[in-house]
Amino acid sequence: MKVRVDVMLKDGVLDPQGEAVRHALGALGFAGVEGVRQGKVIELELADGTPESEVGRMCEQLLANTVIESYRIVME
Amino acid sequence: MKVRVDVMLKDGVLDPQGEAVRHALGALGFAGVEGVRQGKVIELELADGTPESEVGRMCEQLLANTVIESYRIVME
Repeated sequence: MKVRVDVMLKDGVLDPQGEAVRHALGALGFAGVEGVRQGKVIELELADGTPESEVGRMCEQLLANTVIESYRIVME
Repeated sequence: MKVRVDVMLKDGVLDPQGEAVRHALGALGFAGVEGVRQGKVIELELADGTPESEVGRMCEQLLANTVIESYRIVME
């Protein structure tokens, strides 16, 4: 089974990577880009029947730094 | 309007970051992790009415390296 995990910096945490992308898009002539946040997406191929709670533990222990990052689990 | 862009390494392109995560999950005792691919997620706050084709141009010109990466646009 496939599981996707999105890891994003929490609101209020400075995102220099996203800011750099925003500036670069403006420099390339794209207008109307009001904000950019960049995060990670992790696609896991897991044994069938793996519960979402186990994926949650993976996030808490390794995939996300929960001090500054939030995560979202999508069972596909 | 919010637009999400997922940028993943194409199949066949070696993903050392994903491999490192797979090994680390195994070392932490998570069984049944058969594969991990890691990519980027970019959340854009754009002017209302921005067409998907414009986001596609952003991906081609800046957000993705289309030689080794594929992208998916999700208009939210």
